[in-house]
Amino acid sequence: MKKRFTSEIIKYDGTQLGSLWAFRNFGLQGDSIVSFQGPCQVNLSEMVDLADVRDNSPIYSENMLHFIIEHFDLDLEKTIVRQRLLMAIIKDTLQQFTGVALRRSGDDLYHEDKKLSVSIATLTPVSTMIHTGLNILSDNVPVPAVGLADLGLTEQDAPGLGAAICDLYTRECSDIRMARCKVRGVK
Amino acid sequence: MKKRFTSEIIKYDGTQLGSLWAFRNFGLQGDSIVSFQGPCQVNLSEMVDLADVRDNSPIYSENMLHFIIEHFDLDLEKTIVRQRLLMAIIKDTLQQFTGVALRRSGDDLYHEDKKLSVSIATLTPVSTMIHTGLNILSDNVPVPAVGLADLGLTEQDAPGLGAAICDLYTRECSDIRMARCKVRGVK
Amino acid sequence: MKKRFTSEIIKYDGTQLGSLWAFRNFGLQGDSIVSFQGPCQVNLSEMVDLADVRDNSPIYSENMLHFIIEHFDLDLEKTIVRQRLLMAIIKDTLQQFTGVALRRSGDDLYHEDKKLSVSIATLTPVSTMIHTGLNILSDNVPVPAVGLADLGLTEQDAPGLGAAICDLYTRECSDIRMARCKVRGVK
Amino acid sequence: MKKRFTSEIIKYDGTQLGSLWAFRNFGLQGDSIVSFQGPCQVNLSEMVDLADVRDNSPIYSENMLHFIIEHFDLDLEKTIVRQRLLMAIIKDTLQQFTGVALRRSGDDLYHEDKKLSVSIATLTPVSTMIHTGLNILSDNVPVPAVGLADLGLTEQDAPGLGAAICDLYTRECSDIRMARCKVRGVK
Amino acid sequence: MKKRFTSEIIKYDGTQLGSLWAFRNFGLQGDSIVSFQGPCQVNLSEMVDLADVRDNSPIYSENMLHFIIEHFDLDLEKTIVRQRLLMAIIKDTLQQFTGVALRRSGDDLYHEDKKLSVSIATLTPVSTMIHTGLNILSDNVPVPAVGLADLGLTEQDAPGLGAAICDLYTRECSDIRMARCKVRGVK
Amino acid sequence: MKKRFTSEIIKYDGTQLGSLWAFRNFGLQGDSIVSFQGPCQVNLSEMVDLADVRDNSPIYSENMLHFIIEHFDLDLEKTIVRQRLLMAIIKDTLQQFTGVALRRSGDDLYHEDKKLSVSIATLTPVSTMIHTGLNILSDNVPVPAVGLADLGLTEQDAPGLGAAICDLYTRECSDIRMARCKVRGVK
Repeated sequence: MKKRFTSEIIKYDGTQLGSLWAFRNFGLQGDSIVSFQGPCQVNLSEMVDLADVRDNSPIYSENMLHFIIEHFDLDLEKTIVRQRLLMAIIKDTLQQFTGVALRRSGDDLYHEDKKLSVSIATLTPVSTMIHTGLNILSDNVPVPAVGLADLGLTEQDAPGLGAAICDLYTRECSDIRMARCKVRGVK
Repeated sequence: MKKRFTSEIIKYDGTQLGSLWAFRNFGLQGDSIVSFQGPCQVNLSEMVDLADVRDNSPIYSENMLHFIIEHFDLDLEKTIVRQRLLMAIIKDTLQQFTGVALRRSGDDLYHEDKKLSVSIATLTPVSTMIHTGLNILSDNVPVPAVGLADLGLTEQDAPGLGAAICDLYTRECSDIRMARCKVRGVK
Repeated sequence: MKKRFTSEIIKYDGTQLGSLWAFRNFGLQGDSIVSFQGPCQVNLSEMVDLADVRDNSPIYSENMLHFIIEHFDLDLEKTIVRQRLLMAIIKDTLQQFTGVALRRSGDDLYHEDKKLSVSIATLTPVSTMIHTGLNILSDNVPVPAVGLADLGLTEQDAPGLGAAICDLYTRECSDIRMARCKVRGVK
Repeated sequence: MKKRFTSEIIKYDGTQLGSLWAFRNFGLQGDSIVSFQGPCQVNLSEMVDLADVRDNSPIYSENMLHFIIEHFDLDLEKTIVRQRLLMAIIKDTLQQFTGVALRRSGDDLYHEDKKLSVSIATLTPVSTMIHTGLNILSDNVPVPAVGLADLGLTEQDAPGLGAAICDLYTRECSDIRMARCKVRGVK
Repeated sequence: MKKRFTSEIIKYDGTQLGSLWAFRNFGLQGDSIVSFQGPCQVNLSEMVDLADVRDNSPIYSENMLHFIIEHFDLDLEKTIVRQRLLMAIIKDTLQQFTGVALRRSGDDLYHEDKKLSVSIATLTPVSTMIHTGLNILSDNVPVPAVGLADLGLTEQDAPGLGAAICDLYTRECSDIRMARCKVRGVK
Repeated sequence: MKKRFTSEIIKYDGTQLGSLWAFRNFGLQGDSIVSFQGPCQVNLSEMVDLADVRDNSPIYSENMLHFIIEHFDLDLEKTIVRQRLLMAIIKDTLQQFTGVALRRSGDDLYHEDKKLSVSIATLTPVSTMIHTGLNILSDNVPVPAVGLADLGLTEQDAPGLGAAICDLYTRECSDIRMARCKVRGVK
C-alpha cells in the first residue's frame, strides 16, 4: 500500500473521491492513502451520502487535514469497517499528539459533543474509496464543531500528523493481510 | 446480530472457536457475539495461530473475560478488520470504565507494555470467527501481563463490561451495514 | 429488510430502477421491497433488457401493480434467482387470492398463454435491483396479455395484494438468511 | 449443468451430501442434479441441520424420491435461494402430475398440513450442495406426513417425475445464467 | 462460451470495449470472444489504461487482428490473469503458424524488441472485458512495431488465425471450469 | 509474494499440498512459491484429482523439480487460471534454457507426446494451492514421459531453473495486481 503526504493545498469539493485519483495525480498505483491540507466545500449535488442530502446538510470547512484512501476491491462493507478502524487510529494518534480526550461514534470524531471530522466511503467502478477530513479551523463549519487548532495544534503540525496517520493506516492494512496468512481453519 | 453475556463459567480451550458454537449452546442463530468468564488454556496442538505455534507460545490465563464472535461469511480479511475494530471498542470502553490509558497494537491491548489480551480470527467451513480474551487476573500468564483487576475492576464488574462491549460491537456492525446502504457510487 | 406498500400512484418509466430509489423517496435504508400502482411505459432507450431492445419490444401497460426491490450486494445472478423465487411467491399468492391457475416460465407469469407480468433484474453501482409489474388492466398491452381485473380482482384489491407479497418476500429473505446459519459443513 | 435420473436404489443416509458425489459415482463433472429412489435414514450424528439436532428430530422415510444437487461455488445463501426455487419447481410439477394442491413453506412442501418433503443445503470444502427428498410412502415417517402414493402416484411414476424435475431445474439454472448476460447496468 | 470470427471490417476506437458489445452486435449472449480485422485508433480521451494516458501514448495501427472478450463476473484481477493466458495462447499459436519465435512480457508480445500487440482489460458495470489487437501491418505504429505481415502472414491468413485463437481460448476456459470440478479439498 | 528455492531434498507425497506449508516449514507468510527437488509418489488414497483416481492413475517419479504455490483467497477457478499461466511461464523458461520445443496442453507440458509434468490445484480451508512437478529423470514414470535430463539439463541446473521460475511467477503476480490498479471502468 502506497502512502503520501503532499504539501500541495487542495480544495476538497468531492471530485477527489473518484477512482484512481492518487494514480492520476501522484502516480501512486495500487491501494493508497494520500493526505493534504485545504478547504472543504461539497455542494448537495456532489454529495455521495444521501442521508446528508435528505437532511440537507452540505459540508463546509475553511481548512481541513484530508485523507483520500483507495482499495482496489469492490466490497463496500469491508471498506466501511476499514473506515471505522481509520477513525480509531486517528483518534488514538490525536490523543497522543494533543493529550485531549476524543470520542469516536461510528465514522465521526467528537470533542465534547463538537464534531471534529467528516467521513464517507463509497464504490467507484473499479475500487472502494474513503474520504476523511479533520477540521483544522472550526470557524463557519455549519454544525457545532471543533478544530485541531482548538486542540492546541497549529497548521504546522498538520504535515507530521497527516504523515503519521498515513503510516499507521498503511501498517495496519499490511499487518491485517499478514494476520490472514498465519491461521489454520477450524471445524 | 445476536448478543449475549452468559454468567456460566466456561473454560476456553480453543474448542469454542468452532462453527455454530453460539447456536449449539445458546440457540443464537445468525451473526453473534457471546461473552463469558472463565480460565483460558490452549495447548499448542489446539492453537490456530501458527505464528504462536512456531514461537512455541501457548496461551494461559487463570481467569479471563471472553468474547466469541461469528460472522456468516467467508472473508477472513474482513473479519480481521472487524477484530481490530473490536479491540478499539474494547480499549475505549475500558478507558471509560477505569480511567486508565491503554494502547492498541494490532489485535493486542497493552497497559504500559504489559499485555491485557489475546485474540485470534479464523475461518470455519461455514463462517469466520473471532476469539478475544481479556485477563481478569494476571497471575501465571506466560508473558508480562496485566489484568482487569490491576486496572481497578473486580470480577463483579465483568458482566457489565462484557455486556457493554457486546452491545457496542453489535451496534457498530449494524451501523456499518446501514452506512453501506446510503451512498451512491462515484466515477 | 424493509417493506412498504405506498398508495401514491407512480408512473413506472424505468427511472425507478435506480440505486437507493427507496431510500431517496421513502427513507427506507437497507434491502427493501416497495409496492405501488401506476401506469407503465418504458421506451426502448430506457430499457435495460437488451434482448427486448433487440426484439424491439417496448413495455406498456395502463395500470400495473409494481414491485421495486433492492439488495445491497453485487451478485446479479443471485438476485436473478431471488427474482424467480419472487415470481413463484406472486404466483402462489395470486392463486390464493383468485383461485385461478397461473403458470410461471422463468421470470414471467401467464394465464392460458396470456402474459400477466413484466420483470427485470440488474446491477447498479452499489446494489442489485428487481422490477416486477403485474398488469391490473390488460387493455393496450402490446402482447397478448391478461390483467388482475381479468382474474376477478379490482383495483381496490391491489393494496392488500401488494402488501401481502411484500410481506412474503421479506419473510422468505429473512428465513433464507437464517437457514444459512444453522448448518455445519460437510466433506 | 449435468442431470441424471438413475434407476439404482440408493439408501440416503447423509453421506451422499458430500463433495463430488455425482462425479465419483456417475462421472458427472461440473454443476449437477441427480435423482434416485430409496429409503432415507439420517441419524442425529450425521445431520447437518443443527436446528433439527437441537430439536432431536431424526429423518426417516421408507421410500423417497431423492435429488442431490451440487453447485461449484461457495455462496451458501445463493444455494439456499436456489433450493427454495427448486421446491417451487417441484410443487408446480407435482400439481401438474397429480392435480393436487400443495403448499410451499420455505424449503418444505405440505399437503393439508402433512409434510411431503425434507430438504437441506450446505457447504463442502469445494462446493455447495442441496438434498431434497419427497416421501413416496408416508408410513412410519416420524412427523405427520404425506407421500406421493397418497397423491395418486405410484413408484412407477417416480422415474418420470424425477427426470422432469431434473430437466426443469437444469433449464432454470441455465436460463438464469443467460438472464444475467442480457442487461446493462443502471445508475 | 460463445466464439465468433466475423469478416466484417470494424475500426477499433475503444467503444467496442463496452458491456454486451457481442450481444448487441452479434446476438452472442453469455461469456464470449469475437475476432475481426480493422484499423485501430484510440484517442487519449477514450483510453482506459491511465498509465498510457500518463505517458501520453495513444494507440494507432493501420490494420489489426482484434479480439474482444467478455466474462460476466466482476473480478478484474481474475480477468487480467485470463488476459495473460490469452497472450500465451496467441504466442504459441503464432509460433505454430509462422515458425517465428516471439516473447511474451506481461500482456505484450514482442518479436526482437518490436511490439506486436496492444491489450487491456477492464470492468464494465456488469462484466469484465479484454481487448487484444495484433498488428497486421506495422506502418505508422507510434512505437517500434512488428506486424503479422512481417512474420510472413498475409491478410488472408487473419480469419484462420483469429478463429483458431478464439477456439483455443474458448476451450481453455471450458477446461479450466471443468478442472475446478474434479478436486477434493485438502487440509 | 514470497519466493524460495530450497536445496533441501523433499519427497513429495501429497501432504505438501496443505495450507500454510510454506509458513510452517520456511516461515514464508503470505502468498508464496517454493521450489525444491525430490522424488514424487502420491498414492491413490492421497490424490486430490478425482479424475485420476477414477482412472486409477497414481503419480510417481524418481526425481522432480517441484513448485508449491499458495494464494490466500478462496477462488479455485482463479487459481486454476494462474496454474495455466504458470505452465506457460515454465514452458517459455525451459525453451530458453534448453532450446527444445515444448507443448502446453491445459496444465500439462509435453515434448513430442511425452509428458514432462504433473500439476494440480485445489482449495484448503484458508487458501488455494498449486503443485507442479517437472520430471528430472523419466525412468519408471507410469506414463510415456520425458525428463529435464532428456532435454539436456542436469540436476545441477535444477536450482537455477527453479529459482528463475519462482522469480518469473512472483513478478507476473505482482504485475497482474498492478495492472488491476491502472484502468478506469467503462460503460
